[in-house]
Amino acid sequence: MSPTESHPIIAIAGPGLLGGSLAMALKHSHPTAQVRLWARRPEAVAEIEALQLPAKATTSLSEAVTGAHWIILATPVAVMEHLVTQIARQALGENCIVTDVGSVKGDLVHRLEALLEGQGARFIGSHPMAGSEKAGISAARADLFRGANCIITPTPKTSAPDLARVSDFWRALGCRLLTMSPEEHDQKVARISHLPHLMAAVTTLAALRTDPEALSCAGGGFRDSTRVASGDPDLWTGIVRENKDAIAARLRDGLDTLRELLEIVEGMDEGKLRDFLAEAKGLRDRLPTGAPHYGID
Amino acid sequence: MSPTESHPIIAIAGPGLLGGSLAMALKHSHPTAQVRLWARRPEAVAEIEALQLPAKATTSLSEAVTGAHWIILATPVAVMEHLVTQIARQALGENCIVTDVGSVKGDLVHRLEALLEGQGARFIGSHPMAGSEKAGISAARADLFRGANCIITPTPKTSAPDLARVSDFWRALGCRLLTMSPEEHDQKVARISHLPHLMAAVTTLAALRTDPEALSCAGGGFRDSTRVASGDPDLWTGIVRENKDAIAARLRDGLDTLRELLEIVEGMDEGKLRDFLAEAKGLRDRLPTGAPHYGID
Repeated sequence: MSPTESHPIIAIAGPGLLGGSLAMALKHSHPTAQVRLWARRPEAVAEIEALQLPAKATTSLSEAVTGAHWIILATPVAVMEHLVTQIARQALGENCIVTDVGSVKGDLVHRLEALLEGQGARFIGSHPMAGSEKAGISAARADLFRGANCIITPTPKTSAPDLARVSDFWRALGCRLLTMSPEEHDQKVARISHLPHLMAAVTTLAALRTDPEALSCAGGGFRDSTRVASGDPDLWTGIVRENKDAIAARLRDGLDTLRELLEIVEGMDEGKLRDFLAEAKGLRDRLPTGAPHYGID
Repeated sequence: MSPTESHPIIAIAGPGLLGGSLAMALKHSHPTAQVRLWARRPEAVAEIEALQLPAKATTSLSEAVTGAHWIILATPVAVMEHLVTQIARQALGENCIVTDVGSVKGDLVHRLEALLEGQGARFIGSHPMAGSEKAGISAARADLFRGANCIITPTPKTSAPDLARVSDFWRALGCRLLTMSPEEHDQKVARISHLPHLMAAVTTLAALRTDPEALSCAGGGFRDSTRVASGDPDLWTGIVRENKDAIAARLRDGLDTLRELLEIVEGMDEGKLRDFLAEAKGLRDRLPTGAPHYGID
């Protein structure tokens, strides 16, 4: 192992739940690393220091990334292009890998990759399916990534050794790795994360808009099935904008499926209702059980 | 306290998750009670005995309810009328209260109440919002009811002392009590339990029907928001049949809300999308946090 691999400098950009949790987790997975946490606002730096996170906090992007071997973008996807433009101008460490934790890949990965081309550093997209409806660094947890699926999205330009390095990085944090193209990622994640998120918002509104008091009767079913509706509206607006077409296609599937169910219920066709519910159960039961992972994706 | 109150005989009909959990919980809340658990099938009696549940198991309804001061129906709602018809013919204990754990009240409560009229026993509907997508007595837990909302549905015929007794019964098991008419119960529960259940099935099907492999990317968001879709199709078909009108009305609200969202996404109106998500978050955030309760309602 080279000295830079055994004592890497790791810069995290964005001091939210994911960036903060990553700083905490790296203390265990990479105990010899020097971890830096970049925040745009001085108040965020003060909060990181008050929380005694195991990372050097700074509002200077240059100070955070100079000499870095790893840079992890943990900001909203909307600002990543601007950030990488600035990062490309800094004196990064040798063989620097820039990766992210964003929920949308697609075109963005190709644009970020192009911004670093010829700079010695390479961009490879990552999406650890971890998070929480609780936003902000105060909700950070060292075990946030443990047991979570993490999707790596190489492109034809990604080298095999770089892909292996990124995979090892997330594996060391306890993630289960999957690899697919940025385009396939966006299709799968529209199904498994973006659709459920938006459906949780629809369910909450359909249940409570015309009678908020019904909430006092809530049990665990409502609690769990609508939990992600508490996510940050700004963050999710950005995600929907970036993955609009795949998400609209899934919402249309949702509309068709809901229409199908309403027709069954209105006609009270018991056989068809049982089949509908059994088909959903059959698909849902294929999800491996095990330690629950309380992510928002 | 009379001897019958200090050493009550409590009969539970139905050896599923709720009936089994109730037998376990009563050992703590009512340590001096004699608990009997009625099961239709001899195999279920053998299972109760193998699990060493703190209850006398029997396939004889007469043996289970003779002399009972409390009878709790923990069967599917579809069989309750038949069961109470048989129970009304037995020699019940003095001042016997018959209650249930069913997810639908409405007409059923009035029919069950009428079946016991003039028999000394009284029916009062209860709905502890506890349960799990795991069915069956092997998933039973002594703490299933702890922290759960429990809705009691008195009618104009219910006496105040009987209502107080039923409330005390569930409160001793750790439930938080709510009281409303059977009709209001069905409206509220259609919103807060039946709709989320059916929407979880819709989300599962819309996400996975045309690409089951997307499941391999699942994170905590999908896991939680579709958990209740693993519920028993037979049980839920019965619930939908009994509360069809209120459920159909909520599904129509769901359809309207989903159409509204799809239009916003297709037009990519960021301001409207943010408002839509913020409205859902505002309603969802009103749910008190605290110990999560993993019920299916």
